[in-house]
Amino acid sequence: MNMSTDSSHPYEAGLGKNAANYIPLSPIGFLGRSAAVYPNRTSVIHGNRRYTWRQSLERCRRLASALAKRGIGRGDTVAVMAPNVPEVFEAHFGVPMAGAVLNALNIRLDAETIAFILKHGGAKVLITDTEFAPVIGPALKLLDKKPLVIDIADPQGPGGDRLGECDYEAFLTIGAPNFAELRPEDEWDAIALNYTSGTTGNPKGVVYHHRGAYLNALGNILTWGMRQHPVYLWTLPMFHCNGWCFPWTVTALAGTHVCLRRVEAGAIYEAVERDGVTHLCGAPVVMNMLLNARQGKKLPRPIEMMTAGAAPPAAVIGGMEVLGFRITHVYGLTETYGPSTVCAWHDEWDARSDDERARLKARQGVSYPVLEGLTVADPDTLEPVAADGATMGEVFMRGNIVMKGYLKNPAATQEAFAGGWFHSGDLGVMHPDGYIEIKDRSKDIIISGGENISTIEVEDVLYRHPAVLEAAVVARPDDMWGETPCAFVTLKDDAEAAADDIIAFCRQHLARFKAPRHVIFGPLPKTSTGKIQKFVLRERAKLAR
Amino acid sequence: MNMSTDSSHPYEAGLGKNAANYIPLSPIGFLGRSAAVYPNRTSVIHGNRRYTWRQSLERCRRLASALAKRGIGRGDTVAVMAPNVPEVFEAHFGVPMAGAVLNALNIRLDAETIAFILKHGGAKVLITDTEFAPVIGPALKLLDKKPLVIDIADPQGPGGDRLGECDYEAFLTIGAPNFAELRPEDEWDAIALNYTSGTTGNPKGVVYHHRGAYLNALGNILTWGMRQHPVYLWTLPMFHCNGWCFPWTVTALAGTHVCLRRVEAGAIYEAVERDGVTHLCGAPVVMNMLLNARQGKKLPRPIEMMTAGAAPPAAVIGGMEVLGFRITHVYGLTETYGPSTVCAWHDEWDARSDDERARLKARQGVSYPVLEGLTVADPDTLEPVAADGATMGEVFMRGNIVMKGYLKNPAATQEAFAGGWFHSGDLGVMHPDGYIEIKDRSKDIIISGGENISTIEVEDVLYRHPAVLEAAVVARPDDMWGETPCAFVTLKDDAEAAADDIIAFCRQHLARFKAPRHVIFGPLPKTSTGKIQKFVLRERAKLAR
Repeated sequence: MNMSTDSSHPYEAGLGKNAANYIPLSPIGFLGRSAAVYPNRTSVIHGNRRYTWRQSLERCRRLASALAKRGIGRGDTVAVMAPNVPEVFEAHFGVPMAGAVLNALNIRLDAETIAFILKHGGAKVLITDTEFAPVIGPALKLLDKKPLVIDIADPQGPGGDRLGECDYEAFLTIGAPNFAELRPEDEWDAIALNYTSGTTGNPKGVVYHHRGAYLNALGNILTWGMRQHPVYLWTLPMFHCNGWCFPWTVTALAGTHVCLRRVEAGAIYEAVERDGVTHLCGAPVVMNMLLNARQGKKLPRPIEMMTAGAAPPAAVIGGMEVLGFRITHVYGLTETYGPSTVCAWHDEWDARSDDERARLKARQGVSYPVLEGLTVADPDTLEPVAADGATMGEVFMRGNIVMKGYLKNPAATQEAFAGGWFHSGDLGVMHPDGYIEIKDRSKDIIISGGENISTIEVEDVLYRHPAVLEAAVVARPDDMWGETPCAFVTLKDDAEAAADDIIAFCRQHLARFKAPRHVIFGPLPKTSTGKIQKFVLRERAKLAR
Repeated sequence: MNMSTDSSHPYEAGLGKNAANYIPLSPIGFLGRSAAVYPNRTSVIHGNRRYTWRQSLERCRRLASALAKRGIGRGDTVAVMAPNVPEVFEAHFGVPMAGAVLNALNIRLDAETIAFILKHGGAKVLITDTEFAPVIGPALKLLDKKPLVIDIADPQGPGGDRLGECDYEAFLTIGAPNFAELRPEDEWDAIALNYTSGTTGNPKGVVYHHRGAYLNALGNILTWGMRQHPVYLWTLPMFHCNGWCFPWTVTALAGTHVCLRRVEAGAIYEAVERDGVTHLCGAPVVMNMLLNARQGKKLPRPIEMMTAGAAPPAAVIGGMEVLGFRITHVYGLTETYGPSTVCAWHDEWDARSDDERARLKARQGVSYPVLEGLTVADPDTLEPVAADGATMGEVFMRGNIVMKGYLKNPAATQEAFAGGWFHSGDLGVMHPDGYIEIKDRSKDIIISGGENISTIEVEDVLYRHPAVLEAAVVARPDDMWGETPCAFVTLKDDAEAAADDIIAFCRQHLARFKAPRHVIFGPLPKTSTGKIQKFVLRERAKLAR
């Protein structure tokens, strides 16, 4: 008997969905509840600006209302270009409350890439911090159809040109504070669009739905053991996988979002002292910075820190723990709403040596409670590898916190989901205790300071240099950034170019962080079929000075 | 533009559900994860019996497999009659892992009602503890079609006849420990069936789906701020709204279930000392018992206690807090998967006087984070009442933790969901701060020791007594039980009957706890249209000795 499809079965007959017992899952409901239960608690702190949950609800409703009045509705894209300021937090609610889809842009991108994303994502509105006018101005010039532009003029920012028809605060005034927010008609409706540098040159637009955002917002709470009213410091960019869903997580707990325009040790420790920070997230590079700046001075109280992006070195974990940071190691991808695995700790591991604890903690671990499947398997057959901690395979995930797919890219979407699993592109092993460990990033991606750099994108630029015959880019290990791009270049016959010329050329055409730090000239090693042997180059890169 | 229904919209085209990114929500996945991540942690304690999560997974799979081998599958009902023993916990996973629906029976019910439920619910299997053979035996005799009967022969139980073809442990041996559990085909598929005494005579079968069970299992974690590895003591019956979803909640957190056949202060405090209990739930009557037995001796460490069912008196809350119990007051109904509102605490209330804190805490509060709507409104117009703490209205809920509906009872289902809200039948007020407070149970229900008693059901029996002309039953306040039934009876002309006769007659035909404790003879007060004025009787009942 198939219940689901047999409406005459007693457990189905007359027992369908209705307005009383079914509402599409969406994180936007968290805001209304926190504002109703804790209207006077502090929701957002940004320097001297402070909001309560009642005020945040009103501001988000005003934003949704103002967007609606400008014709923005279901399925429209609203882009935001800003650091971690209250406006980006508000966009995580105000935009979907208008039925629209939030596209938070990486503030480190160059004008060309921004223009590509705005065009590809079909942004009808762009909310942009004046600090980024020098990039956004040229990007807008590259577009045939201009979006409605709204400026964020943050008194704490460095100023900059206004490019839009009004500023954000003025825009809010045209919205109604009691706007009746739109809930999604279906929890599968898109809530966010996040571009990621894949292994192809053009960024891919990862589409999130309301269901996944709701579930991973709760997944963070379950994984991290979070209780009511955390004070969450925004060191992790909100434009990275929607801040790993924490704009929704912290709101669900009626916590406090502490904003931060720049990730600087001084500002972080100031917020810790002043605002009573309890939680923060960041790449290992942030841990390094915090460790070096503190010089062994213990925190006023323990702080939970979630990290991802690279295995944290034992010395760093140990040093942070001495200060009073409790480190949780998670792993995920843009395609999995941010973190989707966690190195779930076992109490008995506390007794192990420092090195052994770091070795255990460096593993990417087990599935988030809201992810349903995690495996390391043969990329072709999907046959799981032996759980021996040695046999390499690709990491695969499945479940409700796997993206909807790539926007306007059916080929990439199908490839990513081939065989009914999401192909992470990361290579790893499965340990005997069921914990995964990433052994190698998918071969072409460079992770620098927590940012993905597609080597193909950099190579594309190198190939545009008049003197370059051939080029290949690989990751070079870097103490500060984790990895940096290292270019191997063969010049054309008779052509001349210095390393500095090549780097300067790349900086002209790429976000600064994507430009190679090192350029090495010479012939490229190749396979018999003519494929460049990047694994050879990676070894050479380690030796580059 | 309607995204949901326009498959050519860029946010929909090629971005449908597939095996990688969509899996129906179900709490059964919690078991597999906890067994994978914490295989050797203690899952269940029952006296000297102890299981690990690996063992619990194996036992649940064996149960599912054994059921499947006996032809039980999707949409079939499996009933369980037992106190809080490991087998009932296992049924919460093993039964749905076979695709079937769990019907946990209230062990205090009489044979006639049990027979009604088994027949109405269509149970194909009955797993029954030998303690209840004296009730189950006669109940089975009333059935034309007998279910497969499996006995639980608990060494800690009082013994009793075996009624089935084998005992539970023998049944498990025919199942495979590596059985591939069935996930629901749709998260709307039924997972459980719970009978409730409504205001009509026959119990109604409340149907839960996998989605709601998953969400309220997480709702408990969010509401109570639960972290990994709670040690949860089973004072609340698992047959009450599936133990308020805690079989799934505690499993999601890889905690420990501490079983308890009987709710006795000695056994509870023994488990607290021996097993390190951190959490428990129970009606105020349990608090009273714990308070009286402890005589002021503080707990070895604080324990979280969730209570519901009646407003806890200030003295009880105060006394419990002195002992070290932290009381959380929740409210809900069988129709809302157990608790669906919580008196969410505000830190600043800590500074109030004992009485004021008790008054604040006695309120039923605000919606669970996973409930989407809660209001107090006019039952006819659904217009919300003034939030003045005085204007009475009916309490209404909506959201994903509202039942699927009543089994085979479309009229009651439609009535319960009229207007797109679930009609709780409870009367209350809305305070200015948005907290609800129940002022009166729906007029006909008596809550005795946490059990619902339908007055109509009792009246039906009274009317069957040869000497009774008219009868009405109301709640009488009781220090021990909260309320007990009080019967008002008009005898037929020339007929004679003593109170004891009437009570004995009721005990013959009803569960003992439903029989009136008091019987008062005389004419019944009526309205001009002939309706019995129960509010007058309630006043009189208070004076009964």
